[in-house]
Amino acid sequence: MTAKLAEMTTLDAARAAERGTAVILPVGAFEQHGAGLPLATDQIRAEAVADAVAEALPDRVVIGPGVPVGVSPHHQAFAGTVSLRPTLFAAVVREYVESLAAHGWTRFLVVTGHGGNNATLGTLAQELLRDRPDLELAWAPVTAMAPDAVGSMERSPVSGHSGEAETAQMLHVAPHLVRHDLLAPGTTTPDELDPFARLARSVSHPAVALPYDRLSPSGVLGDPRRATAEDGRAILTEATDRIVAFVKEWLDT
Amino acid sequence: MTAKLAEMTTLDAARAAERGTAVILPVGAFEQHGAGLPLATDQIRAEAVADAVAEALPDRVVIGPGVPVGVSPHHQAFAGTVSLRPTLFAAVVREYVESLAAHGWTRFLVVTGHGGNNATLGTLAQELLRDRPDLELAWAPVTAMAPDAVGSMERSPVSGHSGEAETAQMLHVAPHLVRHDLLAPGTTTPDELDPFARLARSVSHPAVALPYDRLSPSGVLGDPRRATAEDGRAILTEATDRIVAFVKEWLDT
Amino acid sequence: MTAKLAEMTTLDAARAAERGTAVILPVGAFEQHGAGLPLATDQIRAEAVADAVAEALPDRVVIGPGVPVGVSPHHQAFAGTVSLRPTLFAAVVREYVESLAAHGWTRFLVVTGHGGNNATLGTLAQELLRDRPDLELAWAPVTAMAPDAVGSMERSPVSGHSGEAETAQMLHVAPHLVRHDLLAPGTTTPDELDPFARLARSVSHPAVALPYDRLSPSGVLGDPRRATAEDGRAILTEATDRIVAFVKEWLDT
Amino acid sequence: MTAKLAEMTTLDAARAAERGTAVILPVGAFEQHGAGLPLATDQIRAEAVADAVAEALPDRVVIGPGVPVGVSPHHQAFAGTVSLRPTLFAAVVREYVESLAAHGWTRFLVVTGHGGNNATLGTLAQELLRDRPDLELAWAPVTAMAPDAVGSMERSPVSGHSGEAETAQMLHVAPHLVRHDLLAPGTTTPDELDPFARLARSVSHPAVALPYDRLSPSGVLGDPRRATAEDGRAILTEATDRIVAFVKEWLDT
Amino acid sequence: MTAKLAEMTTLDAARAAERGTAVILPVGAFEQHGAGLPLATDQIRAEAVADAVAEALPDRVVIGPGVPVGVSPHHQAFAGTVSLRPTLFAAVVREYVESLAAHGWTRFLVVTGHGGNNATLGTLAQELLRDRPDLELAWAPVTAMAPDAVGSMERSPVSGHSGEAETAQMLHVAPHLVRHDLLAPGTTTPDELDPFARLARSVSHPAVALPYDRLSPSGVLGDPRRATAEDGRAILTEATDRIVAFVKEWLDT
Amino acid sequence: MTAKLAEMTTLDAARAAERGTAVILPVGAFEQHGAGLPLATDQIRAEAVADAVAEALPDRVVIGPGVPVGVSPHHQAFAGTVSLRPTLFAAVVREYVESLAAHGWTRFLVVTGHGGNNATLGTLAQELLRDRPDLELAWAPVTAMAPDAVGSMERSPVSGHSGEAETAQMLHVAPHLVRHDLLAPGTTTPDELDPFARLARSVSHPAVALPYDRLSPSGVLGDPRRATAEDGRAILTEATDRIVAFVKEWLDT
Repeated sequence: MTAKLAEMTTLDAARAAERGTAVILPVGAFEQHGAGLPLATDQIRAEAVADAVAEALPDRVVIGPGVPVGVSPHHQAFAGTVSLRPTLFAAVVREYVESLAAHGWTRFLVVTGHGGNNATLGTLAQELLRDRPDLELAWAPVTAMAPDAVGSMERSPVSGHSGEAETAQMLHVAPHLVRHDLLAPGTTTPDELDPFARLARSVSHPAVALPYDRLSPSGVLGDPRRATAEDGRAILTEATDRIVAFVKEWLDT
Repeated sequence: MTAKLAEMTTLDAARAAERGTAVILPVGAFEQHGAGLPLATDQIRAEAVADAVAEALPDRVVIGPGVPVGVSPHHQAFAGTVSLRPTLFAAVVREYVESLAAHGWTRFLVVTGHGGNNATLGTLAQELLRDRPDLELAWAPVTAMAPDAVGSMERSPVSGHSGEAETAQMLHVAPHLVRHDLLAPGTTTPDELDPFARLARSVSHPAVALPYDRLSPSGVLGDPRRATAEDGRAILTEATDRIVAFVKEWLDT
Repeated sequence: MTAKLAEMTTLDAARAAERGTAVILPVGAFEQHGAGLPLATDQIRAEAVADAVAEALPDRVVIGPGVPVGVSPHHQAFAGTVSLRPTLFAAVVREYVESLAAHGWTRFLVVTGHGGNNATLGTLAQELLRDRPDLELAWAPVTAMAPDAVGSMERSPVSGHSGEAETAQMLHVAPHLVRHDLLAPGTTTPDELDPFARLARSVSHPAVALPYDRLSPSGVLGDPRRATAEDGRAILTEATDRIVAFVKEWLDT
Repeated sequence: MTAKLAEMTTLDAARAAERGTAVILPVGAFEQHGAGLPLATDQIRAEAVADAVAEALPDRVVIGPGVPVGVSPHHQAFAGTVSLRPTLFAAVVREYVESLAAHGWTRFLVVTGHGGNNATLGTLAQELLRDRPDLELAWAPVTAMAPDAVGSMERSPVSGHSGEAETAQMLHVAPHLVRHDLLAPGTTTPDELDPFARLARSVSHPAVALPYDRLSPSGVLGDPRRATAEDGRAILTEATDRIVAFVKEWLDT
Repeated sequence: MTAKLAEMTTLDAARAAERGTAVILPVGAFEQHGAGLPLATDQIRAEAVADAVAEALPDRVVIGPGVPVGVSPHHQAFAGTVSLRPTLFAAVVREYVESLAAHGWTRFLVVTGHGGNNATLGTLAQELLRDRPDLELAWAPVTAMAPDAVGSMERSPVSGHSGEAETAQMLHVAPHLVRHDLLAPGTTTPDELDPFARLARSVSHPAVALPYDRLSPSGVLGDPRRATAEDGRAILTEATDRIVAFVKEWLDT
Repeated sequence: MTAKLAEMTTLDAARAAERGTAVILPVGAFEQHGAGLPLATDQIRAEAVADAVAEALPDRVVIGPGVPVGVSPHHQAFAGTVSLRPTLFAAVVREYVESLAAHGWTRFLVVTGHGGNNATLGTLAQELLRDRPDLELAWAPVTAMAPDAVGSMERSPVSGHSGEAETAQMLHVAPHLVRHDLLAPGTTTPDELDPFARLARSVSHPAVALPYDRLSPSGVLGDPRRATAEDGRAILTEATDRIVAFVKEWLDT
């Protein structure tokens, strides 16, 4: 049977809540991903991972409603980007959580295809710690859950948004939405960054938020042409495995 | 080419904005639809209409991000229902609108599969009238756009949520998600309503909001077994036609 | 004895709450009503209906505090119009309701002289359904409660704000505030509307909010000179009768 | 002609704004006033002063919409009391001010019959200083504008809410709403106060907010039987005179 | 042992809460104080009083976290001024109070070095009266707690912000932060005020908030050169004594 | 001359703003730090770093007002902890930033002694990116700025809050506030953690927020007795050096 609440009836949902399932909430972004990837890239990858986790844990998790738009002010200069304020994004996820908690669920895992949602999810977890100590919220950014697979890929010295790792995932899960002919390298070396952008990306220094148009004219960091579907499969498999291991232990504690 | 912004790249989006397209935002609900229909019923129907409108108006509209969860406090007693507060739902749609307005779009049509979103959309339109007089917002509840088709269907004396008309639409657009064997009549006559619920549904009287568990133990109004896919096709065709006619005139004014 | 809480002492109020009375909250607008009617037109009509309902139901209802300003962004272009945001208007009514609920009242009927408040009242009812299921909120727009009387009046093809029906009511309840000599027809036929305004008023099409200066240069829809006090009496009598019937049943359920 | 915007048409309002008039906003409270005075006592007195000021300054001031409910959490234990949160009360007055500022008015005087609104009005003035330096907001609590008349009355050692001065004003402006037979002394001497309440009322000490049921079982401070209509006339005359003098200078600066 | 919570460990804090201590919260402002006094003047004086009160009441009070920035929109024209909106300032103090209430404290005294915080503290007390009737909040503006000492100082006809009394306090508690050579008279007589500023400072008239640059080009009211450390000592001693007397009675009620 | 705005006059501040200085805002927490460290530990360390950075960059930075209370819901079970909600903490820092921006400053560096503020600062940076693209906000958590010094210390297998590194810093900057005799090991090995707490601290897994009482009964992670003032000096020197290097480059870009 489907793990997607969206496709269940209310009677199915009642049974799933009773079974003590955890709820996965796949969230993404609606933002530029360069000339080659679609605006929904982050949501597509989050849903792919959510599906894979659910498949690996039959009857132990359900997939709740997603949030197709994330916190993307840094991409707003690029056409098509839609963004929610952090407080609004947090409020939406919180309403999902509290609605579902009213039906008996207590464990929620947000899988986010967009790292720009992390800080907001962190603040939401703190709010819930205070207001709803009866609930547990975990959150997992997709690509960061696959350090080994990403580490073993060939990547440009500067690599990130819409670059090798992200393109690889899309080649694996949604190749029909990748414009292969339009994939083109963005900023690939530190030299191409302006001094402040370089500063913003340096390690063990103060953190800075930067608009992406200061990082790359095309909105791409890295060279998406180097990505392969095989790399993408490896990333998503590792991310899925780590999340599955986590959820298993979680449900057993 | 796709009309879905989600599947476009930022470069596609830039071109679509330049063409002066209108944006359709399909919104729904995540709520009980009785024993036979899935929780996402309203979002599924809204997306079906959005797709049909876009197909009828190539290059004149784009489909923006959806809102899979609506304003459903009246269904909260039924498992699986997820609901946003009116102010939160309005804020989400507003952020979509304002994000896209920053890229040049000025006309927005919300297609809602859930009538419970209407009041909130009305208040949002008033807010925008005040704060963003440069933008135009229209909104269309799916079933209400098909008065003729619905009027010519056979329906129970009490009919509505998850009843004949809604089930018919699902039989047309997503038959694989309908539990045919579990479709069962809910409240079908005024006699079955408790006095206050009857009062709440009477015509030309003060309006009242009621929790659905006071209207029907199963959450259903009407007899979904009487629905046919053919009726559903007629409803969605009429709704699409009316919206297409509206959008054409709108884009030409 | 007076049914107006405003004129009662705290001891009177305590007794009225104990009797299980319903509370009527008359709300209006503070907005242009053309050259002939005063800014408070909507509040005046709402209070007239509230008084008549209270008179018909002695000891069964009390009249609580009013809200003299409503949601009127569509009239803001006309001098003197004062408007509350929907969220603010809802919050005010909610505080009235929750303050009075603390004294024991549980049933609240908002009588609104201004249709522009309807959507906001709808969202408020949804909020209360969620947060205060122990309370019941009904709301009634004055003119819409008199479909028969309005239907039998002679009206222009385009008729509405400050037109025949509204002027008639003022001629009945507050003739000294009507500038008879200044009453003048506004927009009376569809031909006078610009295309988008015509679109906005068409039936079974998507809804649109429009600023009134696009509908009529004088802010008037219809021909107020055709109104008679007798028509006004009929409208207010029908509205009162329907509300009284509703409240009686409500109090008895 | 009337100074009340409520009774003006939009054309009248346009002319009044053009004349550079100041706007008086009469605000009150909806709260207990003991066994003898009505819940609307504060609003009634505020409107009386607003009317008198307007009469003394023809064509120089207009009276805008009132706020019939104020900030009264300290009276909430007494039946019938309705209260707005400070932030909500401030938001309502601010929307009045900003709506009217859009029509050209720049000077606003809030006349409050309720001292419990003072702190909120003070914060609103600070907000406007920051956000709307083009506007000027003044505010005047009625009784505090008559130090000489109040000082020359005979009053109990403890005197205040619903006591000699307030009752006197009501005897002057609304004698038909005073329950003469029910007027009765409340707390009249410090000895009757519990220690903390005594502390809260001491001079040149830290300020404390106290619920009125700790100050007086009947909600009355002082002996309303000692009040005369003549005293009330003196208080309201002095308050009016001081405000008129202020407004004259204001309009001339 | 220290009375400062900041310097205590969590175990010390637990013991202090158990003892039934009151909590003093010293709050100030971060605003211009003319050419001679530092921006933190108000916070410095508040902390001095808090320390003195704590010293006089060993084991009976603790000093909680301060708020170094207050409500100062009227000083915003002067460089270095930092200001919180009233609602934000109130929210911060409220979170302090509610956090500490969770550990068992119920009595809170805000000592404010800045009179501009008074209105906000008044609204906060009203909010708590409504939402947290189990807590008691008192607040004391420093200089106003010393009417006798201030009354007996030699002061200019116009005197106030950064003038004789305030400078005297700083000469007593933080002489190293006073720029003696730069102390200079600001506005010292009513003649120097523009008509509206004079109006704003008149007695028994409506209240008005004014930006300080309309009151004095240097931001100073009075002649700080006349201040002596001895006067400052007298002011702070009187303020401390009055607050100590209040707290003693409070803790004993 | 002092770099602290708090000790400057408004004239000093005007000159500092004109020089194009960056503003350092030291923020901390008011939370339990075990039996041996004071509640203000995080603020004390943040201020120490701010001072050291300012000393190393004379005339190039100023130190603005601090925020003595941070986001600490995870420590709320321990007496004395005071916490601001994330949205409130962000709002306070934002008001500081916007107040100072009005005087001409454009670069702001938040030095936080409390890692629990990081997510909130991240969301604030995103908000400013959207609303105030003219400003730049950087943020630096103290201990994380010293990876080398911390890495070379001897630490327990589980180490963190109030453990070796934090205690060391306090021994260096505020030894008089350390209760040497009460320093005691908290949770020092994974075995002592309950399964879910262990899960929450594992690497490359979904993130989880946990209340500290589930991590350690004493609120301490690690063994503070192993800390030396020399280690503390090394940590703070490294953190200062990295921040100084960053600010220099920043001011030169």
